[in-house]
Amino acid sequence: MANAEVVLLDFWPSPFGMRVRIALAEKGIKYEYKEEDLQNKSALLLQMNPVHKKIPVLIHNGKPVAESLIAVQYIDEAWKDKAPLLPSDPYLRAQAKFWADFVDKKIYALGRKIWATKGEEQEAAKKEFIESLKLMEGKLGEKPYFGGESFGYVDVVLVPFYSWFYAYEVFGNFSIEAECPKLIQWAKRCSEKESVLKSLPDHKKVHGFVLELKKRLGIE
Amino acid sequence: MANAEVVLLDFWPSPFGMRVRIALAEKGIKYEYKEEDLQNKSALLLQMNPVHKKIPVLIHNGKPVAESLIAVQYIDEAWKDKAPLLPSDPYLRAQAKFWADFVDKKIYALGRKIWATKGEEQEAAKKEFIESLKLMEGKLGEKPYFGGESFGYVDVVLVPFYSWFYAYEVFGNFSIEAECPKLIQWAKRCSEKESVLKSLPDHKKVHGFVLELKKRLGIE
Repeated sequence: MANAEVVLLDFWPSPFGMRVRIALAEKGIKYEYKEEDLQNKSALLLQMNPVHKKIPVLIHNGKPVAESLIAVQYIDEAWKDKAPLLPSDPYLRAQAKFWADFVDKKIYALGRKIWATKGEEQEAAKKEFIESLKLMEGKLGEKPYFGGESFGYVDVVLVPFYSWFYAYEVFGNFSIEAECPKLIQWAKRCSEKESVLKSLPDHKKVHGFVLELKKRLGIE
Repeated sequence: MANAEVVLLDFWPSPFGMRVRIALAEKGIKYEYKEEDLQNKSALLLQMNPVHKKIPVLIHNGKPVAESLIAVQYIDEAWKDKAPLLPSDPYLRAQAKFWADFVDKKIYALGRKIWATKGEEQEAAKKEFIESLKLMEGKLGEKPYFGGESFGYVDVVLVPFYSWFYAYEVFGNFSIEAECPKLIQWAKRCSEKESVLKSLPDHKKVHGFVLELKKRLGIE
Protein backbone atom coordinates (compact mmCIF):
# COMPACT_ATOMS: atom_id res chain seq x y z
CA MET A 1 0.00 0.00 0.00
CA ALA A 2 1.27 3.47 -0.83
CA ASN A 3 2.74 5.37 2.09
CA ALA A 4 1.37 8.65 0.81
CA GLU A 5 -0.57 10.85 3.16
CA VAL A 6 -0.09 9.34 6.56
CA VAL A 7 -0.66 11.77 9.42
CA LEU A 8 -0.51 11.07 13.16
CA LEU A 9 -2.32 13.28 15.65
CA ASP A 10 -0.49 12.65 18.88
CA PHE A 11 0.75 14.05 22.20
CA TRP A 12 4.35 13.26 23.11
CA PRO A 13 3.93 11.67 26.60
CA SER A 14 1.03 9.44 25.51
CA PRO A 15 1.90 5.72 25.76
CA PHE A 16 -1.00 5.14 23.37
CA GLY A 17 0.50 7.51 20.82
CA MET A 18 3.89 5.84 21.27
CA ARG A 19 2.37 2.52 20.21
CA VAL A 20 1.33 3.98 16.88
CA ARG A 21 4.73 5.69 16.43
CA ILE A 22 6.52 2.38 17.05
CA ALA A 23 4.26 0.44 14.65
CA LEU A 24 4.75 3.04 11.91
CA ALA A 25 8.52 2.96 12.48
CA GLU A 26 8.59 -0.86 12.42
CA LYS A 27 6.90 -0.76 9.02
CA GLY A 28 9.16 2.03 7.76
CA ILE A 29 6.22 4.31 7.01
CA LYS A 30 6.93 8.01 6.58
CA TYR A 31 4.31 10.23 8.17
CA GLU A 32 3.57 13.73 9.33
CA TYR A 33 3.56 14.01 13.12
CA LYS A 34 1.16 16.63 14.47
CA GLU A 35 1.45 17.44 18.16
CA GLU A 36 -1.88 18.22 19.79
CA ASP A 37 -2.47 20.69 22.60
CA LEU A 38 -4.99 18.71 24.64
CA GLN A 39 -6.10 21.88 26.46
CA ASN A 40 -6.99 23.37 23.08
CA LYS A 41 -7.71 20.55 20.68
CA SER A 42 -7.33 21.20 16.97
CA ALA A 43 -10.28 21.35 14.60
CA LEU A 44 -8.67 18.42 12.78
CA LEU A 45 -8.69 16.23 15.90
CA LEU A 46 -12.33 17.06 16.64
CA GLN A 47 -13.22 16.30 13.03
CA MET A 48 -11.22 13.06 12.84
CA ASN A 49 -12.28 11.62 16.21
CA PRO A 50 -15.63 13.25 17.00
CA VAL A 51 -16.71 10.36 19.23
CA HIS A 52 -13.86 10.28 21.77
CA LYS A 53 -11.95 13.50 20.83
CA LYS A 54 -8.74 11.73 21.91
CA ILE A 55 -5.29 11.15 20.49
CA PRO A 56 -3.77 9.18 18.89
CA VAL A 57 -5.55 9.31 15.56
CA LEU A 58 -3.87 7.83 12.52
CA ILE A 59 -5.07 9.44 9.30
CA HIS A 60 -4.37 7.44 6.17
CA ASN A 61 -5.31 9.09 2.90
CA GLY A 62 -7.77 11.30 4.76
CA LYS A 63 -9.45 8.44 6.65
CA PRO A 64 -9.07 8.31 10.43
CA VAL A 65 -8.34 5.31 12.64
CA ALA A 66 -8.71 6.02 16.36
CA GLU A 67 -7.93 3.90 19.44
CA SER A 68 -4.31 2.79 19.65
CA LEU A 69 -4.80 -1.00 19.60
CA ILE A 70 -7.05 -0.69 16.56
CA ALA A 71 -4.59 1.64 14.84
CA VAL A 72 -1.67 -0.76 15.45
CA GLN A 73 -3.72 -3.66 14.06
CA TYR A 74 -4.71 -1.49 11.09
CA ILE A 75 -1.07 -0.63 10.38
CA ASP A 76 -0.19 -4.33 10.54
CA GLU A 77 -2.95 -5.24 8.09
CA ALA A 78 -2.61 -2.30 5.68
CA TRP A 79 1.20 -2.66 5.40
CA LYS A 80 1.44 -6.39 5.72
CA ASP A 81 4.54 -7.01 3.62
CA LYS A 82 7.02 -5.81 6.22
CA ALA A 83 7.68 -6.55 9.90
CA PRO A 84 4.51 -8.47 10.80
CA LEU A 85 3.39 -7.58 14.31
CA LEU A 86 0.58 -10.06 14.93
CA PRO A 87 1.14 -13.76 14.27
CA SER A 88 -0.85 -15.35 11.43
CA ASP A 89 -2.17 -18.31 13.46
CA PRO A 90 -5.68 -17.49 14.79
CA TYR A 91 -4.98 -18.88 18.26
CA LEU A 92 -1.68 -17.04 18.68
CA ARG A 93 -3.41 -13.87 17.42
CA ALA A 94 -6.12 -14.29 20.06
CA GLN A 95 -3.45 -14.78 22.75
CA ALA A 96 -1.60 -11.63 21.69
CA LYS A 97 -4.87 -9.66 21.70
CA PHE A 98 -5.67 -11.01 25.17
CA TRP A 99 -2.41 -9.68 26.63
CA ALA A 100 -2.72 -6.35 24.83
CA ASP A 101 -6.19 -6.01 26.33
CA PHE A 102 -4.73 -6.92 29.74
CA VAL A 103 -2.20 -4.08 29.42
CA ASP A 104 -5.03 -1.67 28.58
CA LYS A 105 -7.19 -2.84 31.48
CA LYS A 106 -4.46 -2.86 34.12
CA ILE A 107 -1.21 -1.02 33.47
CA TYR A 108 -2.43 2.46 32.50
CA ALA A 109 -5.12 2.75 35.17
CA LEU A 110 -2.90 1.35 37.94
CA GLY A 111 0.03 3.52 36.86
CA ARG A 112 -2.19 6.59 37.08
CA LYS A 113 -3.22 5.66 40.62
CA ILE A 114 0.44 5.36 41.59
CA TRP A 115 1.14 9.02 40.77
CA ALA A 116 -2.32 10.46 41.48
CA THR A 117 -3.20 8.88 44.84
CA LYS A 118 -1.66 8.37 48.27
CA GLY A 119 -1.90 6.10 51.28
CA GLU A 120 -3.91 2.90 51.05
CA GLU A 121 -5.20 3.53 47.54
CA GLN A 122 -1.66 4.06 46.28
CA GLU A 123 -0.35 0.99 48.11
CA ALA A 124 -3.11 -1.18 46.65
CA ALA A 125 -2.37 0.17 43.16
CA LYS A 126 1.37 -0.50 43.54
CA LYS A 127 0.66 -4.06 44.67
CA GLU A 128 -1.67 -4.80 41.76
CA PHE A 129 0.65 -3.02 39.32
CA ILE A 130 3.56 -5.27 40.32
CA GLU A 131 1.33 -8.37 40.27
CA SER A 132 0.22 -7.44 36.74
CA LEU A 133 3.79 -6.89 35.56
CA LYS A 134 4.82 -10.21 37.12
CA LEU A 135 2.06 -11.93 35.15
CA MET A 136 3.42 -10.30 31.99
CA GLU A 137 6.94 -11.36 32.99
CA GLY A 138 5.73 -14.93 33.41
CA LYS A 139 4.10 -14.77 29.99
CA LEU A 140 7.37 -13.50 28.48
CA GLY A 141 9.27 -16.41 30.06
CA GLU A 142 12.70 -16.93 28.51
CA LYS A 143 11.75 -15.48 25.12
CA PRO A 144 13.52 -12.31 23.97
CA TYR A 145 10.18 -10.72 23.02
CA PHE A 146 6.50 -11.33 23.71
CA GLY A 147 6.33 -12.00 19.97
CA GLY A 148 8.90 -14.81 20.43
CA GLU A 149 12.12 -14.38 18.52
CA SER A 150 10.89 -11.17 16.95
CA PHE A 151 9.38 -7.96 18.29
CA GLY A 152 5.59 -8.09 17.92
CA TYR A 153 2.18 -6.73 18.86
CA VAL A 154 2.34 -7.20 22.67
CA ASP A 155 5.83 -5.68 22.68
CA VAL A 156 4.51 -2.62 20.81
CA VAL A 157 1.58 -2.33 23.21
CA LEU A 158 3.50 -2.64 26.51
CA VAL A 159 6.91 -1.05 25.92
CA PRO A 160 5.66 2.59 25.86
CA PHE A 161 4.92 2.33 29.57
CA TYR A 162 8.64 1.78 30.17
CA SER A 163 9.08 5.52 29.57
CA TRP A 164 6.69 6.11 32.50
CA PHE A 165 8.34 3.62 34.90
CA TYR A 166 10.73 6.22 36.35
CA ALA A 167 7.79 8.53 37.18
CA TYR A 168 5.87 5.61 38.73
CA GLU A 169 8.95 4.71 40.80
CA VAL A 170 9.56 8.25 42.04
CA PHE A 171 5.94 8.95 42.97
CA GLY A 172 5.35 5.43 44.29
CA ASN A 173 8.70 5.15 46.08
CA PHE A 174 9.41 1.65 44.85
CA SER A 175 11.65 -0.13 42.36
CA ILE A 176 10.07 -1.93 39.43
CA GLU A 177 13.44 -3.43 38.47
CA ALA A 178 13.81 -5.02 41.93
CA GLU A 179 10.42 -6.69 41.49
CA CYS A 180 10.55 -7.57 37.80
CA PRO A 181 14.19 -7.76 36.67
CA LYS A 182 13.47 -9.85 33.56
CA LEU A 183 10.78 -7.48 32.39
CA ILE A 184 13.23 -4.59 32.68
CA GLN A 185 15.77 -6.60 30.68
CA TRP A 186 13.09 -7.06 28.04
CA ALA A 187 12.30 -3.32 28.05
CA LYS A 188 15.98 -2.46 27.62
CA ARG A 189 16.24 -4.99 24.80
CA CYS A 190 13.25 -3.35 23.07
CA SER A 191 14.74 0.10 23.64
CA GLU A 192 17.77 -0.83 21.56
CA LYS A 193 15.51 -1.12 18.52
CA GLU A 194 15.49 2.05 16.47
CA SER A 195 11.67 1.98 16.20
CA VAL A 196 11.36 2.12 20.00
CA LEU A 197 14.35 4.38 20.63
CA LYS A 198 12.95 7.15 18.43
CA SER A 199 9.35 6.76 19.65
CA LEU A 200 9.78 6.86 23.43
CA PRO A 201 10.56 10.13 25.23
CA ASP A 202 13.21 10.37 27.93
CA HIS A 203 11.94 9.04 31.26
CA LYS A 204 13.01 12.19 33.13
CA LYS A 205 11.05 14.31 30.67
CA VAL A 206 7.98 12.14 31.39
CA HIS A 207 8.60 12.58 35.13
CA GLY A 208 8.66 16.37 34.62
CA PHE A 209 5.43 16.14 32.67
CA VAL A 210 3.72 14.20 35.47
CA LEU A 211 4.94 16.77 38.02
CA GLU A 212 3.32 19.55 35.98
CA LEU A 213 0.18 17.49 35.43
CA LYS A 214 -0.20 16.93 39.17
CA LYS A 215 0.09 20.68 39.73
CA ARG A 216 -2.47 21.43 37.04
CA LEU A 217 -4.90 18.86 38.47
CA GLY A 218 -4.32 20.12 42.01
CA ILE A 219 -2.87 16.79 43.20
CA GLU A 220 -0.34 17.21 46.03
CA MET B 1 -11.05 -26.32 10.79
CA ALA B 2 -12.52 -29.30 12.58
CA ASN B 3 -15.43 -28.49 14.83
CA ALA B 4 -14.38 -31.11 17.36
CA GLU B 5 -14.13 -30.18 20.99
CA VAL B 6 -15.61 -26.75 21.23
CA VAL B 7 -16.80 -25.84 24.72
CA LEU B 8 -18.30 -22.55 25.90
CA LEU B 9 -18.17 -21.54 29.56
CA ASP B 10 -20.98 -19.04 29.88
CA PHE B 11 -23.74 -17.56 32.05
CA TRP B 12 -27.13 -17.15 30.40
CA PRO B 13 -27.84 -13.41 31.02
CA SER B 14 -24.35 -12.31 29.95
CA PRO B 15 -24.43 -10.12 26.82
CA PHE B 16 -20.75 -11.00 26.40
CA GLY B 17 -21.55 -14.70 26.41
CA MET B 18 -24.39 -14.09 23.94
CA ARG B 19 -21.90 -12.62 21.47
CA VAL B 20 -19.92 -15.85 21.44
CA ARG B 21 -23.12 -17.94 21.17
CA ILE B 22 -24.26 -15.88 18.17
CA ALA B 23 -20.87 -16.11 16.44
CA LEU B 24 -20.74 -19.89 16.93
CA ALA B 25 -24.30 -20.20 15.60
CA GLU B 26 -23.52 -18.01 12.58
CA LYS B 27 -20.64 -20.34 11.72
CA GLY B 28 -22.74 -23.46 12.35
CA ILE B 29 -20.31 -24.77 14.96
CA LYS B 30 -21.57 -27.43 17.35
CA TYR B 31 -20.37 -26.94 20.91
CA GLU B 32 -20.93 -27.97 24.47
CA TYR B 33 -22.52 -25.19 26.52
CA LYS B 34 -21.49 -25.17 30.18
CA GLU B 35 -23.44 -22.86 32.45
CA GLU B 36 -21.32 -21.33 35.21
CA ASP B 37 -22.48 -20.48 38.72
CA LEU B 38 -20.64 -17.19 39.20
CA GLN B 39 -21.07 -17.41 42.98
CA ASN B 40 -19.24 -20.73 42.86
CA LYS B 41 -16.99 -20.78 39.83
CA SER B 42 -15.97 -24.13 38.41
CA ALA B 43 -12.40 -25.43 38.58
CA LEU B 44 -12.48 -25.46 34.77
CA LEU B 45 -13.27 -21.72 34.57
CA LEU B 46 -10.49 -20.86 37.06
CA GLN B 47 -8.09 -23.02 35.10
CA MET B 48 -9.09 -21.68 31.68
CA ASN B 49 -9.22 -17.98 32.62
CA PRO B 50 -6.90 -17.62 35.61
CA VAL B 51 -6.24 -13.93 34.88
CA HIS B 52 -9.79 -12.54 34.88
CA LYS B 53 -11.79 -15.56 36.14
CA LYS B 54 -14.70 -14.38 33.98
CA ILE B 55 -17.05 -15.88 31.44
CA PRO B 56 -17.34 -16.27 28.52
CA VAL B 57 -14.44 -18.57 27.75
CA LEU B 58 -14.35 -20.40 24.46
CA ILE B 59 -12.33 -23.62 24.65
CA HIS B 60 -11.24 -25.01 21.31
CA ASN B 61 -9.42 -28.33 21.41
CA GLY B 62 -8.48 -27.66 25.02
CA LYS B 63 -7.14 -24.14 24.39
CA PRO B 64 -8.99 -21.20 25.96
CA VAL B 65 -9.90 -17.88 24.38
CA ALA B 66 -11.24 -15.32 26.87
CA GLU B 67 -12.71 -11.83 26.35
CA SER B 68 -15.78 -11.80 24.14
CA LEU B 69 -14.52 -9.48 21.37
CA ILE B 70 -11.35 -11.54 21.07
CA ALA B 71 -13.35 -14.78 21.05
CA VAL B 72 -15.66 -13.51 18.29
CA GLN B 73 -12.66 -12.45 16.21
CA TYR B 74 -11.03 -15.83 16.87
CA ILE B 75 -14.15 -17.66 15.71
CA ASP B 76 -14.22 -15.53 12.57
CA GLU B 77 -10.57 -16.32 11.81
CA ALA B 78 -10.53 -19.99 12.80
CA TRP B 79 -13.69 -20.81 10.82
CA LYS B 80 -13.26 -18.41 7.98
CA ASP B 81 -15.02 -20.34 5.23
CA LYS B 82 -18.54 -19.57 6.41
CA ALA B 83 -20.47 -16.42 7.33
CA PRO B 84 -17.60 -13.89 7.54
CA LEU B 85 -18.23 -11.46 10.39
CA LEU B 86 -15.46 -8.90 9.90
CA PRO B 87 -14.90 -7.34 6.48
CA SER B 88 -11.63 -8.18 4.70
CA ASP B 89 -10.66 -4.59 3.91
CA PRO B 90 -8.26 -3.28 6.62
CA TYR B 91 -10.00 0.09 6.90
CA LEU B 92 -13.48 -1.38 7.21
CA ARG B 93 -12.12 -3.87 9.77
CA ALA B 94 -10.70 -0.98 11.81
CA GLN B 95 -14.06 0.83 11.62
CA ALA B 96 -15.95 -2.26 12.81
CA LYS B 97 -13.48 -2.72 15.68
CA PHE B 98 -13.88 0.95 16.63
CA TRP B 99 -17.66 0.61 17.01
CA ALA B 100 -17.36 -2.70 18.88
CA ASP B 101 -14.96 -0.98 21.28
CA PHE B 102 -17.45 1.89 21.60
CA VAL B 103 -20.18 -0.58 22.63
CA ASP B 104 -17.85 -2.06 25.25
CA LYS B 105 -16.85 1.34 26.62
CA LYS B 106 -20.34 2.83 26.75
CA ILE B 107 -23.36 0.54 26.55
CA TYR B 108 -22.63 -2.02 29.27
CA ALA B 109 -21.37 0.46 31.88
CA LEU B 110 -24.17 2.97 31.23
CA GLY B 111 -26.81 0.24 31.20
CA ARG B 112 -25.57 -0.95 34.59
CA LYS B 113 -25.89 2.57 35.99
CA ILE B 114 -29.47 2.73 34.74
CA TRP B 115 -30.55 -0.24 36.90
CA ALA B 116 -28.07 0.20 39.76
CA THR B 117 -28.32 3.93 40.52
CA LYS B 118 -30.99 6.57 41.13
CA GLY B 119 -31.48 10.32 40.92
CA GLU B 120 -28.94 12.48 39.13
CA GLU B 121 -26.49 9.64 38.46
CA GLN B 122 -29.24 7.58 36.83
CA GLU B 123 -30.50 10.54 34.78
CA ALA B 124 -26.99 11.29 33.52
CA ALA B 125 -26.50 7.62 32.60
CA LYS B 126 -29.84 7.50 30.73
CA LYS B 127 -28.93 10.64 28.79
CA GLU B 128 -25.51 9.32 27.78
CA PHE B 129 -26.96 5.87 27.04
CA ILE B 130 -29.46 7.36 24.59
CA GLU B 131 -26.80 9.63 23.06
CA SER B 132 -24.59 6.58 22.55
CA LEU B 133 -27.39 4.57 20.95
CA LYS B 134 -28.23 7.52 18.70
CA LEU B 135 -24.60 7.61 17.56
CA MET B 136 -24.87 3.90 16.75
CA GLU B 137 -28.18 4.54 14.97
CA GLY B 138 -26.52 7.24 12.89
CA LYS B 139 -23.69 4.84 12.04
CA LEU B 140 -26.27 2.23 10.95
CA GLY B 141 -27.99 4.75 8.68
CA GLU B 142 -30.29 3.13 6.14
CA LYS B 143 -28.37 -0.15 6.02
CA PRO B 144 -30.14 -3.31 7.21
CA TYR B 145 -27.14 -4.28 9.36
CA PHE B 146 -24.02 -2.60 10.72
CA GLY B 147 -22.22 -5.07 8.47
CA GLY B 148 -24.07 -3.58 5.46
CA GLU B 149 -26.27 -6.03 3.57
CA SER B 150 -25.21 -8.87 5.80
CA PHE B 151 -25.09 -9.41 9.55
CA GLY B 152 -21.56 -8.81 10.83
CA TYR B 153 -19.20 -8.16 13.72
CA VAL B 154 -20.79 -4.97 15.11
CA ASP B 155 -24.22 -6.60 14.90
CA VAL B 156 -22.95 -9.58 16.91
CA VAL B 157 -21.38 -7.26 19.47
CA LEU B 158 -24.36 -4.92 20.03
CA VAL B 159 -27.49 -7.05 19.59
CA PRO B 160 -27.14 -8.99 22.90
CA PHE B 161 -27.94 -5.78 24.79
CA TYR B 162 -31.36 -5.79 23.13
CA SER B 163 -32.31 -8.57 25.57
CA TRP B 164 -31.50 -6.12 28.40
CA PHE B 165 -33.40 -3.14 26.94
CA TYR B 166 -36.68 -4.06 28.69
CA ALA B 167 -34.90 -4.15 32.08
CA TYR B 168 -33.20 -0.82 31.34
CA GLU B 169 -36.58 0.67 30.38
CA VAL B 170 -38.38 -0.59 33.48
CA PHE B 171 -35.68 0.49 35.94
CA GLY B 172 -34.95 3.74 34.08
CA ASN B 173 -38.60 4.58 33.36
CA PHE B 174 -37.99 5.55 29.76
CA SER B 175 -38.57 4.19 26.26
CA ILE B 176 -35.59 3.31 24.10
CA GLU B 177 -37.87 2.74 21.10
CA ALA B 178 -39.27 6.29 21.37
CA GLU B 179 -35.73 7.66 21.23
CA CYS B 180 -34.14 5.27 18.73
CA PRO B 181 -36.89 3.74 16.57
CA LYS B 182 -34.55 2.70 13.74
CA LEU B 183 -32.18 0.96 16.12
CA ILE B 184 -35.09 -1.04 17.51
CA GLN B 185 -36.11 -1.96 13.95
CA TRP B 186 -32.56 -3.16 13.42
CA ALA B 187 -32.64 -5.19 16.66
CA LYS B 188 -35.92 -6.81 15.61
CA ARG B 189 -34.45 -7.57 12.19
CA CYS B 190 -31.46 -9.26 13.84
CA SER B 191 -33.76 -11.17 16.20
CA GLU B 192 -35.39 -12.88 13.24
CA LYS B 193 -32.10 -14.59 12.49
CA GLU B 194 -31.91 -18.07 13.98
CA SER B 195 -28.40 -17.42 15.36
CA VAL B 196 -29.70 -14.48 17.39
CA LEU B 197 -33.08 -15.96 18.25
CA LYS B 198 -31.56 -18.99 19.90
CA SER B 199 -28.76 -17.06 21.65
CA LEU B 200 -30.72 -14.27 23.37
CA PRO B 201 -32.84 -14.97 26.47
CA ASP B 202 -36.35 -13.59 26.87
CA HIS B 203 -36.30 -9.93 27.94
CA LYS B 204 -38.68 -10.58 30.85
CA LYS B 205 -36.39 -13.33 32.13
CA VAL B 206 -33.49 -10.85 32.03
CA HIS B 207 -35.65 -8.32 33.91
CA GLY B 208 -36.32 -10.96 36.57
CA PHE B 209 -32.60 -11.67 36.79
CA VAL B 210 -31.81 -7.98 37.32
CA LEU B 211 -34.47 -7.78 40.04
CA GLU B 212 -32.81 -10.66 41.88
CA LEU B 213 -29.36 -9.21 41.30
CA LYS B 214 -30.43 -5.87 42.81
CA LYS B 215 -31.70 -7.72 45.88
CA ARG B 216 -28.49 -9.73 46.22
CA LEU B 217 -26.37 -6.57 45.89
CA GLY B 218 -28.59 -4.68 48.34
CA ILE B 219 -29.64 -2.08 45.73
CA GLU B 220 -33.12 -0.68 46.40
